[in-house]
Amino acid sequence: MQTAEIVAIGSELLTPTKTDTNSLWLTELLNEIGIEVMLKTVVGDDRLRLEETLKDSISRSDIVITTGGLGPTEDDITREVAARALGLELEFRQDLVDDLRERFKAYGYEMPEKNKRQAFVIKGSRVLPNPNGSAVGMMAETGVKKLVVLPGPPREAKPMFIDHVLPELTKSSGQIAVRRKRILVSGLGESKLDELISPIYTRYENPQTAILHSKTEVEVQLTSSASTVVEADHLNSELAQKIVEKLGIAVFSTEGEPIEKVVGDLLRERNEWLSTAESCTGGLVAQRVTDVPGASGYFAEGFITYSNEAKSDLLGVDEALIKKHGAVSAEVAEAMAKGARERSGATYGVSTTGIAGPTGGTDRKPVGTVYIGIAGPHHSKAILLNLPGDRNLVRWRTSQAALDVLRRHILKAGDERTVPFARRS
Amino acid sequence: MQTAEIVAIGSELLTPTKTDTNSLWLTELLNEIGIEVMLKTVVGDDRLRLEETLKDSISRSDIVITTGGLGPTEDDITREVAARALGLELEFRQDLVDDLRERFKAYGYEMPEKNKRQAFVIKGSRVLPNPNGSAVGMMAETGVKKLVVLPGPPREAKPMFIDHVLPELTKSSGQIAVRRKRILVSGLGESKLDELISPIYTRYENPQTAILHSKTEVEVQLTSSASTVVEADHLNSELAQKIVEKLGIAVFSTEGEPIEKVVGDLLRERNEWLSTAESCTGGLVAQRVTDVPGASGYFAEGFITYSNEAKSDLLGVDEALIKKHGAVSAEVAEAMAKGARERSGATYGVSTTGIAGPTGGTDRKPVGTVYIGIAGPHHSKAILLNLPGDRNLVRWRTSQAALDVLRRHILKAGDERTVPFARRS
Repeated sequence: MQTAEIVAIGSELLTPTKTDTNSLWLTELLNEIGIEVMLKTVVGDDRLRLEETLKDSISRSDIVITTGGLGPTEDDITREVAARALGLELEFRQDLVDDLRERFKAYGYEMPEKNKRQAFVIKGSRVLPNPNGSAVGMMAETGVKKLVVLPGPPREAKPMFIDHVLPELTKSSGQIAVRRKRILVSGLGESKLDELISPIYTRYENPQTAILHSKTEVEVQLTSSASTVVEADHLNSELAQKIVEKLGIAVFSTEGEPIEKVVGDLLRERNEWLSTAESCTGGLVAQRVTDVPGASGYFAEGFITYSNEAKSDLLGVDEALIKKHGAVSAEVAEAMAKGARERSGATYGVSTTGIAGPTGGTDRKPVGTVYIGIAGPHHSKAILLNLPGDRNLVRWRTSQAALDVLRRHILKAGDERTVPFARRS
Repeated sequence: MQTAEIVAIGSELLTPTKTDTNSLWLTELLNEIGIEVMLKTVVGDDRLRLEETLKDSISRSDIVITTGGLGPTEDDITREVAARALGLELEFRQDLVDDLRERFKAYGYEMPEKNKRQAFVIKGSRVLPNPNGSAVGMMAETGVKKLVVLPGPPREAKPMFIDHVLPELTKSSGQIAVRRKRILVSGLGESKLDELISPIYTRYENPQTAILHSKTEVEVQLTSSASTVVEADHLNSELAQKIVEKLGIAVFSTEGEPIEKVVGDLLRERNEWLSTAESCTGGLVAQRVTDVPGASGYFAEGFITYSNEAKSDLLGVDEALIKKHGAVSAEVAEAMAKGARERSGATYGVSTTGIAGPTGGTDRKPVGTVYIGIAGPHHSKAILLNLPGDRNLVRWRTSQAALDVLRRHILKAGDERTVPFARRS
C-alpha cells in the first residue's frame, strides 16, 4: 500500500482560530484508492522549517501533498521552497501570466503586477490548471516519489485534486478499492441508534461500521474494501439494506444527501409547493431550501416574521392568539404555518418560533424551547422541542427539525413526533 | 521568544472525519504567554514515525507538547516512544497503580490489569495528575528543552495543562506578551489591498502583518510582541491606525467582528430598522442579520420572493417592470428594496436578485450576475456585481455585498460601488 503525507502551509493555520480542513477530504479521497495517510503537518510561512518538513516528508512517504502558500504576496513561499526541497529551479511561464491577465480582464479588472509571482512553476513539473482562482498547482516527480502542490482554498484545491491528480494516483496505486456509504438518520440519539443496529453491524468485519455524530444528525458510515469498486459497493449495500430496514423512516438518506435536498426531491416528484414562516430561525430554513439548485420548482416565497406585528401583518396570525399564548407557543406556530400556506398558495407551510437565546428564556420557556408548525392540505399541527446548545446551534437544530417534520408529513408517517437532533450520549 | 511544537498522536486523527482540536486551545494559551507555535504534526500509532517526529521537534523547538496515546491498550505508544526519543528509560510507579486502583474502587469497579501500563512514566520527569481520567501526564526536561506529554481527551488535557504546565511555562517564558489584532476589509481584492498597504506595514517588524483571505473578506492580521500586554496592544493600534486611514471605509471592523454584527450595531445606535427582500439569497441575508443576539431591536420582518409573482404580491413590484427588464435587473432590485422598506415601515430596505447557478445563466446575464438594491429615507438605487464562484459562494458573496452596501449607505459613503469579494490570487 502506498503512503502519503499532507503538509498544510500558512502561518494563519498556527493561530488559535484557524484549522486545516483540506486534509480531511484529501484523506478521504486518498483512502478510497487505497493510499494511507501516515502523517499530517501544519507549518507556517517559514522558509527553513518548510524546507526541512518537505525534505523529511519526501524521504519518508511515497506521495507528499501540500496545500496553501501559492498566493501572489511575499509571504507565499511554497513555490520557491518546494523547488528547493526537490533540488530544482523555478521557471517563469509567460503563458500563465497571459492567461491570468485575460481572466482578470473578463471581470473588468487589470491584473495587479504582484500576480506575476504566480507564473513561476517548478521546472519539469506538470502544471495543474485552476479554473477557480489564480494559483496554478503543480505535480513534480523525484524518482518514485511524487510531490503535489495545491492552493489553500478548498474550492480551488478540491476540484484541482479530483480532476488532475486523483486519476494519476489511482493508476499507480495498488488497485484496492475502498468505498464508503453514508446513511443519515434524524430523530434518534446516538446511543439509541447503536442499540438498535449494533446487533446487525457487529456481525460484519467488512464493511466496518462507524457511528458519527454531527450537530443535527447521526451518520452510520460503512467502509468496505474489495478488489473492485463494484464489489466494495455491493458489500456496503448489503449491510446498508439491513440497517435501513431496522431504522425505517428515521433514515432520510442513504447517499449522504442533506435533508434539504431530500425534501426538495420529495416536493418536486409530487409537484407540490412549500412556503416558510420563520421567527427564531430568521430565514435559515428558506436559505437551506433554496441552497439546492432547482428550488424554484417547489419554493416561491417565504416570510420572516421576527416581531409579533409581522406575524399578524404578513401571516394573519390573530393578535389575540399571540397575546393569550405568547409568540412562542404551539397555537402561534400552527397559525404561522397555516398563514404561510394560505398567503402563498403553497401545498405546505412550515413555521418556526422559539427562544434561541442567549437571553429571552423564562422558567416555563427556557432557551431552546421551540415550536415547529406544519400545515398541509388535510391537517395542521405543532410540535414542541427542547433543544440543547447555544444560539447558533438552537437555530440550526430548529431548521433541521422543521425540514424533518415536513419530510415525515409529506411521507404521511402518521407519527410525526420527532427528536430531530441527536443528543451526544 | 520561545518556540513550541504540538504533536497530536493517534491513528484516528488520520481518518477523514476526525481532526485534532487540542492544538487550538493550546496555541491560544501558549500565545498569551509569548510562546509561538511553529509547527503542528499529526502522527498515527506508529513507533518509528512518532520517534522520528519527536526527535525532530525537540531539536527544532524549545517546547514540545504531545497529546494522545496514553491509554491502557497496546496501541497507546506515547509513553514508551517519548522516553526513547529523549534517550531515557521508563520506570514503574507503584504509587500510581495504587491510586488508580482506589479510584476504580470508588466507582465500584476493579481496576483492569491493562491499566497498569499507565503507571509507567519517563524516569526523572514530573508526573502531572489527571483528576478527569486514568492517564497521568508528564513533563520532562532535556537540557533547556521541555517535553510535555498530555492525554488526548480535551476535558483531561486542558485542565492538566492549565493547572500544572502553564504556570511553569509562564515563569520561564521571559514574560513576553503576544497580541493579535484583526482588521476586516470588504470591497478590495487581496492583491489590491496589499498594493495599498504594503508600503506601510513593511516598515514594521513588530507587529508582523499577515494578509488572510476568506470567502468574502480580506483580513489584515497584526501580531505584536512586547514585555506587557498593554505595550503589545499599543504597537498593534499604532500600525492599525495607519492602515485604517489608508483603507478608509473599506475597513468594516478593527475587532474581527462579522459584518452582520457591525451593521446591527450601526442600526441600533441610530434606532433605525431594516427589512430584507431576497431572491437569489433565499433568506441568507436575514439569517445572518438575525444570527446576532438582539437583532429583534432593529429587524422585524423580511421577505423571500423567489418567484416573479412573489415579487409583485409581497413587495408590490410592478409586473410590467419585471416583464420589461427581467427579474434580474437594476430596476427590479431597486423596486424590491423600496417594497420591503414600504411594506415593513423600516428605515432601510435591502434586496438581492441574481443568478446563483449552476443553471439559469445567459450570454448577457451569466451565472454570478447579481443586483443589490438599497432603499433609504432619502434615495434608493441598485448595484451590479459579477461574482465568481459556485452557487453556494455566489449566494454567500451576495449576502456579504448586501450587508456591505447597507453599511456604506448608512455611513453615507457616497461611493457605494464595491467589489465585496476578494479573489484569492
